[in-house]
Amino acid sequence: MTTETKTASTAAIIIIGNEILSGRTPDANLAWLGHQLNLAGVRLVETRIIRDIEEEIISTVQDLSPKYDYIFTTGGIGPTHDDITAESMAKAFDIEIEMNDEAVRQMEAYYGEKLTEARSRMARIPVGATLIENSVSGAPGFIIDNVHVMAGVPRIMQGMFKTILPTLAGGLPMLSSTVACSMQESEIALPLAEIQKEYPNVDIGSYPHFRGGLLGLSVVLRATEEEALAQATKTVIELIRSLGGEPRAITLRDQEDEDPLPATFHHV
Amino acid sequence: MTTETKTASTAAIIIIGNEILSGRTPDANLAWLGHQLNLAGVRLVETRIIRDIEEEIISTVQDLSPKYDYIFTTGGIGPTHDDITAESMAKAFDIEIEMNDEAVRQMEAYYGEKLTEARSRMARIPVGATLIENSVSGAPGFIIDNVHVMAGVPRIMQGMFKTILPTLAGGLPMLSSTVACSMQESEIALPLAEIQKEYPNVDIGSYPHFRGGLLGLSVVLRATEEEALAQATKTVIELIRSLGGEPRAITLRDQEDEDPLPATFHHV
Repeated sequence: MTTETKTASTAAIIIIGNEILSGRTPDANLAWLGHQLNLAGVRLVETRIIRDIEEEIISTVQDLSPKYDYIFTTGGIGPTHDDITAESMAKAFDIEIEMNDEAVRQMEAYYGEKLTEARSRMARIPVGATLIENSVSGAPGFIIDNVHVMAGVPRIMQGMFKTILPTLAGGLPMLSSTVACSMQESEIALPLAEIQKEYPNVDIGSYPHFRGGLLGLSVVLRATEEEALAQATKTVIELIRSLGGEPRAITLRDQEDEDPLPATFHHV
Repeated sequence: MTTETKTASTAAIIIIGNEILSGRTPDANLAWLGHQLNLAGVRLVETRIIRDIEEEIISTVQDLSPKYDYIFTTGGIGPTHDDITAESMAKAFDIEIEMNDEAVRQMEAYYGEKLTEARSRMARIPVGATLIENSVSGAPGFIIDNVHVMAGVPRIMQGMFKTILPTLAGGLPMLSSTVACSMQESEIALPLAEIQKEYPNVDIGSYPHFRGGLLGLSVVLRATEEEALAQATKTVIELIRSLGGEPRAITLRDQEDEDPLPATFHHV
């Protein structure tokens, strides 16, 4: 159940790569990007993971680009024969692809020499696209229409996203709290649904988990309004206590965020 | 670039859950399922991650179900108000949902008592669906048309998938080899494209990675024919040596597979 913030922009991610679908490479970009977009007040509405096949890239971009404010793609912009994202984007928007002088300049500055034939493939960019700087390995990403084309290697993608971030028009960032307990979902389901009705502007989700062989439960509350979130969280804590459970607030993530979070509420 | 095995069935995964999109919960199901499907000779063609919003679940199922042999969903079949997958599936296929007697029986056997009101929500199943046994926590999944509706908690999902597995009509399982080296993609890109042309039935992918601050490269070869795979792998190893690189074969995954893999080739 999601309560849309009216001011929020929307986004979709397209992850391009056979290696993710085959299970060979666990995706390492979605969770990071989803979190960053949420911090920026941009709502990630869906993610698609597709093969590096030209027709599939084209049809996915054509399907999603008109639906959302921002599209982010990862993968397929390297120098090898299976890197077909740039060509596919040009075709999706029916424009030419060309050797981009500025991309050549950035790459030659990075590599300190004339580009080899293989590397020059990475400087082929759809006409009129805006480059996204790559501070890690030289070859830039690019923006075409509302599609932000980024590398698949997490460290490179993250560097590219940070240069894009200031250009995104976000809304209010989503705040969240989590209340964990060792109850089962079915013990709490009905009164939790009542609390959801009582706080329509707070998203209340319930996520079971296994830890140490026991089923436990995290209730996650999300809202853009801190006051409503605080009230709803208090009500959930009281509910769990009234049912004999032992509620504990938990921290959402170990990783450091660039903006420190308030003690009680976390950006989700 | 993918060479389809003619005999292979196709599949899509739908991961349902706001918590995955927000980055709160890293998805733990795609890599496992992708690998299992590949072992079974079923080609995972795409994965969509969507919110737990009824219209979005319905439209995604209606879009994907006709396109592929098998659809697998994870998430949203618990007892709480935000678990709306079963209702949404009934609506997607325009059939009624009912209290399923066999599901009630299985759950009462598991819990050892009459179902509570909240738990009985999990026994509501679209009319005519086939149940998928849940050996871990009682409440079953179900199959409706070609859609296999499973839990989101990895351990429960994995148990459900193992009961489904024998019913899937797969093709030849995909075999793979990986050759890693510390070269850069651009050094190998052009001759690698030639090798790809030489072996049209072997998928050759190139995946850069960072380790210890250095860019390295894994060339992954995939095929259903062991002989072609062996030849292409040998050719890649010779290419890397001829360019002064030090090729090393690496194991694809640490986890134990149920069927032991041959020394050289791994299921991907």
